[in-house]
Amino acid sequence: MQSLQEMIEGIKAGEEKHIARAISLIENDRDKGFALLKELYGSAEISYLVGITGPPGSGKSTLTDKIVLHWRKQGLKVAIIAIDPTSQFSGGALLGDRIRMDNVAADKGVFIRSMGTRGTLGGLNPAIYDTVLLLSYAGYDYILIETVGVGQNEVDIVDLADTTLVVTVPEAGDDIQTFKAGLMEVGDIFVLNKSDRPSVIKMELTLEQMVRLTHKEGEKWTIPIVKTTATENKGIAELVEKINDHKEYLQNDGQLKENRHEVMRRQLINLMEERVLAKIIKPIENSEHFSEKLKAIRDLSEDPYTAAEELLKNRLPE
Amino acid sequence: MQSLQEMIEGIKAGEEKHIARAISLIENDRDKGFALLKELYGSAEISYLVGITGPPGSGKSTLTDKIVLHWRKQGLKVAIIAIDPTSQFSGGALLGDRIRMDNVAADKGVFIRSMGTRGTLGGLNPAIYDTVLLLSYAGYDYILIETVGVGQNEVDIVDLADTTLVVTVPEAGDDIQTFKAGLMEVGDIFVLNKSDRPSVIKMELTLEQMVRLTHKEGEKWTIPIVKTTATENKGIAELVEKINDHKEYLQNDGQLKENRHEVMRRQLINLMEERVLAKIIKPIENSEHFSEKLKAIRDLSEDPYTAAEELLKNRLPE
Repeated sequence: MQSLQEMIEGIKAGEEKHIARAISLIENDRDKGFALLKELYGSAEISYLVGITGPPGSGKSTLTDKIVLHWRKQGLKVAIIAIDPTSQFSGGALLGDRIRMDNVAADKGVFIRSMGTRGTLGGLNPAIYDTVLLLSYAGYDYILIETVGVGQNEVDIVDLADTTLVVTVPEAGDDIQTFKAGLMEVGDIFVLNKSDRPSVIKMELTLEQMVRLTHKEGEKWTIPIVKTTATENKGIAELVEKINDHKEYLQNDGQLKENRHEVMRRQLINLMEERVLAKIIKPIENSEHFSEKLKAIRDLSEDPYTAAEELLKNRLPE
Repeated sequence: MQSLQEMIEGIKAGEEKHIARAISLIENDRDKGFALLKELYGSAEISYLVGITGPPGSGKSTLTDKIVLHWRKQGLKVAIIAIDPTSQFSGGALLGDRIRMDNVAADKGVFIRSMGTRGTLGGLNPAIYDTVLLLSYAGYDYILIETVGVGQNEVDIVDLADTTLVVTVPEAGDDIQTFKAGLMEVGDIFVLNKSDRPSVIKMELTLEQMVRLTHKEGEKWTIPIVKTTATENKGIAELVEKINDHKEYLQNDGQLKENRHEVMRRQLINLMEERVLAKIIKPIENSEHFSEKLKAIRDLSEDPYTAAEELLKNRLPE
């Protein structure tokens, strides 16, 4: 068993073995994870966060692969957090997907980790915030967070990112309607992947219209639409350039700082929620009183609203 | 302003106007909503819950429309809860979708409501449980919960249902890989919609294999695959029959009761969580102390883990 100090040194030196162990600690033994992160806090700035989201089949993994390769050629270190929406179940779907990324998986300058959307207590998986901090201390220049986006939790996650890429494909057609509302709010760059397909023109017009309709007057950033064919590495250089443009825009506009502050605020609330649920709700759930109340609800002799109030009596302030 | 008693009478009489108002109350004024539900508690059994989920573009709305029309011909009353994953944003995507359901929307025996995935405090929207109870008291025979399924919250919601339909289309192809893990756990019936397309055979084989691979020995229910072409009303009668088969299976096996008990347990926990977050976290979030701590985190003079502990000091048991 390695000491905390050894782990801290290993993380600061960017050793993958230590980073992977630290994330497991953060996920599975929260108190020990907190002890580690307390020691590391402030030892580096938060890395630049790039979110990538889009429906299944839009080619996100291949695109991620190519972007990462591009950055690697520039000598940048990259960490990928692949959010697995199914991880509370059989799991493994997205992890399997990652096998495709053979170009980057063996590269020492690239760290890949699959994480679940939610913590055991519900809500956004609190370990995601902690892992972003940890990877920042480990010296990665970019942290790329990849999600299959449509649910609220997924949108929340990419919303953490500084620059969010929303990936779609020409075939999406009517589907775009359903995604529209959520997508428009989180996307900083639209990526039209598989753009070698004939229906690309129609989709491009749709996206252009979406950008036009939602662009607010006075807003300095206009969402660019970048056409890519990730499998052939087409459009990747332009896409990386747009990410840089957006980064520069955020820095000049003071928004990067503001975004980081918002992430810190959310993490603090998330940490409090996690603690409160673990200290109050979990013990009640395992109590005799809870079983009795549940039985009363099932027998229709008590309603759940009254039961919840009574179970919490004397456990809440005033 | 109508009295609580008037509203209760209206709901029991199945008057849409009162039901719609009651749901708005449940969503926007929790305490008043609880008062109403306390009065109604136990006045009827929970209606049979059917979940319907699948990727955008799989034709869920048309399918829902046709299933509902089929039930209506049998004289059954149906309520539809359309879960809108985007509702915290611009919203309206799914609601717009509902306009397509012109066949059922004007029907007095059908009630349609769009609801958000999450509550203001994060986690599964607690109003969904309450609305299911309310609609049960209002005398609907079936409650159909429709979600765009892929995120964990969406899976949680359909997991409430007694019978869950997972809809896919021949084109889904590789996408099915990503959905696979989550889908297999929640689906009771697989619906292969748009089955007039040529690639249907390949998809049917894939689904059959998924069913075979995950079927546990001794399990009495084997997931059926029903081919439909919802736009032409094809396969709907067979699908409704399979829903009935599954209902009968759950009733004979004692599982229907067990499922309801689990829903009650989750609702009780959800209600406690909601209360605890509202009574503890919200006041802290609005306090001076919170602003100070957040400033310290931003200045890197305090880590968020210590800050969360200190903010909660004297507010947690023992």
